[in-house]
Amino acid sequence: MANNEQGPNWIWYPGDYEIWLHQKASVRRQFRGYICPPSWRLDGAYTSIKFRRLFELTEPAELTLSVQGEFVLLLNDDMTPLRYERKPVTSVTLPAGKHTLAINVYNDREIPALYTTGAGCDSGEGWEVTALNGKWVPAAYWNFSDIEQPPASFPFAYEEYDPVNTEALDGGGIIVDFGRETFGYVEFGDVTGTGSIHLYYGESREEALAGELAETFESLSVDGNAASSWRTPVTRAFRYIQLKADEGVQWGNVKHHYEYVPMELRGSFRSSDQRLDDIWELSAHTLQLNMREFLYDGMKRDRWVWSGDANLGFLINNYAYFEQDVTKRTLVALRGKNPVEIHINTIMDYTFYWFLSCYDYYLYTGDLEFVRTHYANMLSLMEFCLKRCNEEGMMEGYPEDWVFIDWAPMERRGALAAEQLLLCRSMETIACFAAELGDTDNERKYSKMADGLRSRIFEAFWDEEQGGFIHGKLNGELQKDILKYPSVFGIRFDYLDEEQRESVKRNVLMNSSIQKIITPFMRFFELEALCEIGEEAHVLREISNYWGGMIDLGATSFWEEFDPSLPPELQYDMYGDKFRKSLCHAWGAAPIYLLGKYVLGVRPIEPGYRRYRVEPKLGELEQIEGKVPTPHGDITVYRDKDRIVVKTCGDGSGILVFTCEGIPQSKDGLLTQTPDGRYELLLEKPGAVYEVNLSN
Amino acid sequence: MANNEQGPNWIWYPGDYEIWLHQKASVRRQFRGYICPPSWRLDGAYTSIKFRRLFELTEPAELTLSVQGEFVLLLNDDMTPLRYERKPVTSVTLPAGKHTLAINVYNDREIPALYTTGAGCDSGEGWEVTALNGKWVPAAYWNFSDIEQPPASFPFAYEEYDPVNTEALDGGGIIVDFGRETFGYVEFGDVTGTGSIHLYYGESREEALAGELAETFESLSVDGNAASSWRTPVTRAFRYIQLKADEGVQWGNVKHHYEYVPMELRGSFRSSDQRLDDIWELSAHTLQLNMREFLYDGMKRDRWVWSGDANLGFLINNYAYFEQDVTKRTLVALRGKNPVEIHINTIMDYTFYWFLSCYDYYLYTGDLEFVRTHYANMLSLMEFCLKRCNEEGMMEGYPEDWVFIDWAPMERRGALAAEQLLLCRSMETIACFAAELGDTDNERKYSKMADGLRSRIFEAFWDEEQGGFIHGKLNGELQKDILKYPSVFGIRFDYLDEEQRESVKRNVLMNSSIQKIITPFMRFFELEALCEIGEEAHVLREISNYWGGMIDLGATSFWEEFDPSLPPELQYDMYGDKFRKSLCHAWGAAPIYLLGKYVLGVRPIEPGYRRYRVEPKLGELEQIEGKVPTPHGDITVYRDKDRIVVKTCGDGSGILVFTCEGIPQSKDGLLTQTPDGRYELLLEKPGAVYEVNLSN
Repeated sequence: MANNEQGPNWIWYPGDYEIWLHQKASVRRQFRGYICPPSWRLDGAYTSIKFRRLFELTEPAELTLSVQGEFVLLLNDDMTPLRYERKPVTSVTLPAGKHTLAINVYNDREIPALYTTGAGCDSGEGWEVTALNGKWVPAAYWNFSDIEQPPASFPFAYEEYDPVNTEALDGGGIIVDFGRETFGYVEFGDVTGTGSIHLYYGESREEALAGELAETFESLSVDGNAASSWRTPVTRAFRYIQLKADEGVQWGNVKHHYEYVPMELRGSFRSSDQRLDDIWELSAHTLQLNMREFLYDGMKRDRWVWSGDANLGFLINNYAYFEQDVTKRTLVALRGKNPVEIHINTIMDYTFYWFLSCYDYYLYTGDLEFVRTHYANMLSLMEFCLKRCNEEGMMEGYPEDWVFIDWAPMERRGALAAEQLLLCRSMETIACFAAELGDTDNERKYSKMADGLRSRIFEAFWDEEQGGFIHGKLNGELQKDILKYPSVFGIRFDYLDEEQRESVKRNVLMNSSIQKIITPFMRFFELEALCEIGEEAHVLREISNYWGGMIDLGATSFWEEFDPSLPPELQYDMYGDKFRKSLCHAWGAAPIYLLGKYVLGVRPIEPGYRRYRVEPKLGELEQIEGKVPTPHGDITVYRDKDRIVVKTCGDGSGILVFTCEGIPQSKDGLLTQTPDGRYELLLEKPGAVYEVNLSN
Repeated sequence: MANNEQGPNWIWYPGDYEIWLHQKASVRRQFRGYICPPSWRLDGAYTSIKFRRLFELTEPAELTLSVQGEFVLLLNDDMTPLRYERKPVTSVTLPAGKHTLAINVYNDREIPALYTTGAGCDSGEGWEVTALNGKWVPAAYWNFSDIEQPPASFPFAYEEYDPVNTEALDGGGIIVDFGRETFGYVEFGDVTGTGSIHLYYGESREEALAGELAETFESLSVDGNAASSWRTPVTRAFRYIQLKADEGVQWGNVKHHYEYVPMELRGSFRSSDQRLDDIWELSAHTLQLNMREFLYDGMKRDRWVWSGDANLGFLINNYAYFEQDVTKRTLVALRGKNPVEIHINTIMDYTFYWFLSCYDYYLYTGDLEFVRTHYANMLSLMEFCLKRCNEEGMMEGYPEDWVFIDWAPMERRGALAAEQLLLCRSMETIACFAAELGDTDNERKYSKMADGLRSRIFEAFWDEEQGGFIHGKLNGELQKDILKYPSVFGIRFDYLDEEQRESVKRNVLMNSSIQKIITPFMRFFELEALCEIGEEAHVLREISNYWGGMIDLGATSFWEEFDPSLPPELQYDMYGDKFRKSLCHAWGAAPIYLLGKYVLGVRPIEPGYRRYRVEPKLGELEQIEGKVPTPHGDITVYRDKDRIVVKTCGDGSGILVFTCEGIPQSKDGLLTQTPDGRYELLLEKPGAVYEVNLSN
């Protein structure tokens, strides 16, 4: 992680804070009172590590330090330790001259970590660390800059809320309503009596009322004689809580401590359609609730980190908060430690989404340092994939793998076209990073491998007759059914020529006889592909119907899944169980991405928005305006039928692309028309306002 | 680990108890009050695992269980947990029919572990476990058969001892003497007053008197008002302790709690030389003190597990306690988890000793099950080695490697002959195990590789002119100096023909102009090689002088190193520091192995003593007798100038080999003379006494 502040920070072994935190977070899931650990290997931090730093002093100087764990300080590999007083913050005198200071730290509870200040040896840049595994790497750090606050937990922020409504229930007890989906602790004040308070959480009122059929519930033991205020031990997602107390137990007030990561909502979207604007705002709330230590799938149930789900969340975040620390933490946690023995989340496609997420992260931020730090882990994950390729260099699911793609029925065995497209894009990602890092051997190797695989995909799976990709190949037999998945990826990855795009649009994506995509997860990619082939207006209608439909049912955050055809009493069922559906799911925030990238029309063309493209499209709207965050400030876009106004960000150069019926005019730069009838305006000045008049 | 008892046992992920315990044990080392973690990666147990078992019941039945960790029970992959009461020992009703019971366990402090009994589902055989890493393996268990005693620590035994002597010191304080080297806690009874008791431990009286120059010391805070009895928190090795108390602090008595693993001393050795007998007994005491959770190097300082040191300890143990559980735990702990990133203990030769130890373990016990369980880890460790081979298929130390061999000065860079011999033997070990397990591909691969390497070793390093192996090859240049190491291994591994053996004996091993071996570690192998070439009498004199010399200086256990030429006041110095020398070092017990294998003359020829050889040699002694343990009971050997008497063990067949001046006679079997003048007697009856009369 990058250092956001000057001065010393707590330091640790790279990745270990994320991996340690990921384990802690992954085992918090409960289902009706029982633990529910994830079905993949959980890794931990190294417990015994060694920090070192070269220093040179003209005279002896005092080093102040604190350590999370047991430790010993050694100078120049001399076995005799430097002496220090045993207290939480202590100090040693470093001798004059050029020396190496080494500090062994052991901790099997939290991550071993170190903070030093003084003697020109502030912890941060310049420190190296080893897990005693034969290599030294630069020590990692983040925003832990207070010597008194070691990285023993995640630094959340809190706000206190009262219920907006409280209602007595017929059978006894009450139900409290906090007004909208939220997350955190519950606290009871002025408690009297001894016994338990029983809490049944509900993302919906129905769930809270269902008692032990609710996904989460708990009993809080209180003793009014010992303390007047009692807080639940575990954070939960809810809007409503049904509360029942043992006889004799009473409380004066009940409060909610909202736990969150503070982040600025940099992106925005306003239009002539209020419903769309509401959808954008609710999407932002939904996403923020899920962006915490990591980017979670949903807040009520798993709170696990799923690589595919996170891929969507990252993309959405790039058009809303542009909060990249959570992205980095999530990518590191998902990769875990070596050896790679199974696919990420056990899902073959989710391994590939991890590569795609790394590419997206680099494209949107330009952060090559992150790529450099984790490049070895990218290569070894790819090597794991290569070992699993069949004789044609394609990947089939192993018996222990989950081949997901979508919930819709399909043959999941054999070499699926969609999976090979994801693999091919993953190889291209490695080739791209290899090029950026000057690793020419791997650049050549993976470019060649990706080119070869792409050719073989088209040879094997492109069906000229049906006008699209067939599903796959099983035991040497082609699976000739046409499903939407490979076409969606073919368009997303820009693998199709103009003719193939048209064919896919007509025969597959806009063909109502083709089996529907079921997950909102895969729908996201489908909607994106539709935008890529010019169907923005269709997508805007979809957003209005699907997401607007949830608002119509009273949603205060967007759901894991929504079927408008279901009666209200079945809306919260999922996976064959009442109330298992998550009503606050990260991928529910998809409209932000679609509106930002395809309506405001902003996207990076080169890593970190060094070059970018702005192609605002009204669809059937009268007017749109909004902001898209970049590493160099925001890009502001306005468009109505008469004007386009773009304020560029603080660095990089862009290109404004549009079509219009009249002859546009701009006084701000060179307006050119391309052979296909589009207009282009170069956006070369940082932080400048460009205006185009469309109706002159 | 094997189950030594019928009935249910606590079960866990294979290797995790050993690896978890190894981490805990490895960080206990302290040096003058500071921690001293090992310089290699420490691995931990998996924290989240899943057990499963298929069961079939004709009617519902009750399963009683206890879990070390948090857990959830699931039936047939249904997400809804089986219900149970939350108490340490609980129960669930299993339904009739054929089902799979799965239990997820999470524990990040101790190892996740499970105990079940009833419903035909006792924990032990039949249970599988996964670390959610794509594979299921049989669950492991050992002697934890009590549902109330989970594997949260190591089950040591304790005995209480009073000091044999207490002496007041001039400067205040006292020194207590426990009579001989021991290990454990110290307890103060009838304590009055509040403050600290300061303990300075000494394996020698001099060390205890040296105060803070002693390797280990500590201050124990006591409060006579809170409790009358106070115990030290950490186990230590010592014979003497200097005790000082803060003013006002007093105690009525001081006791020692000796902590140990109970084991039967099955081997024995008596002879006409009392000094040799004493050496054997003190060796046994030395070894037992070091055989605990693992086979440690020495008790005072490191208490780390060193693969080379352990290789010797295992061999010695095979002639004394034949306690194989400690051997297995040690081998598993040393190998650790994947990925292999560095050599075992960071030492290249120590990786090879690990393979050699596995071979020795199998040769002495015949335990193929252990080999099968850890075979994958053997292969992956060997693959790590192969990746590090140079173009000639030889291994050179990497910059981060420690190339040890011996403390004597030598060139450690490049391809050393001694290291290649160890590598070759390691490959042969893999080939042997592959053959035993029916893995013909790897048998062929590694046999061929070992044959090729052995040829190249002789081509590159055998120097006909000098009559021995040269040292090595560095940057293409031969290093032509002759050191003893490759010759020692060449003899130990039986790689030399008769002519080469004779040449090596004359030109290298018995040549006083060749640089001396320094470590007692490597001296062990040298003495073994000398025995192999018929120099038993010479070796017996060495034992009497070197080990007897320590007894003459008052040793109550054998030391890490001994130089008779040093004055007494320097005898405890080592590594450039006062009192760093360990006075209770496992390899100090070497005489047991040499006396058992080359004087009593007993060794297995086929794994697990299915066939064995007995070749008793008197050297210059009048009489020898003793016992050697095997998996099938003990072999008893007696020899004097007139008679050889052998009692065979309960299974397997042996061969008695000897030379004598007269014409021997035996009524017990077929006595034959070989062309080289030796006599052989087949020992075919189990548990029978064979007697040979030598002087008829």
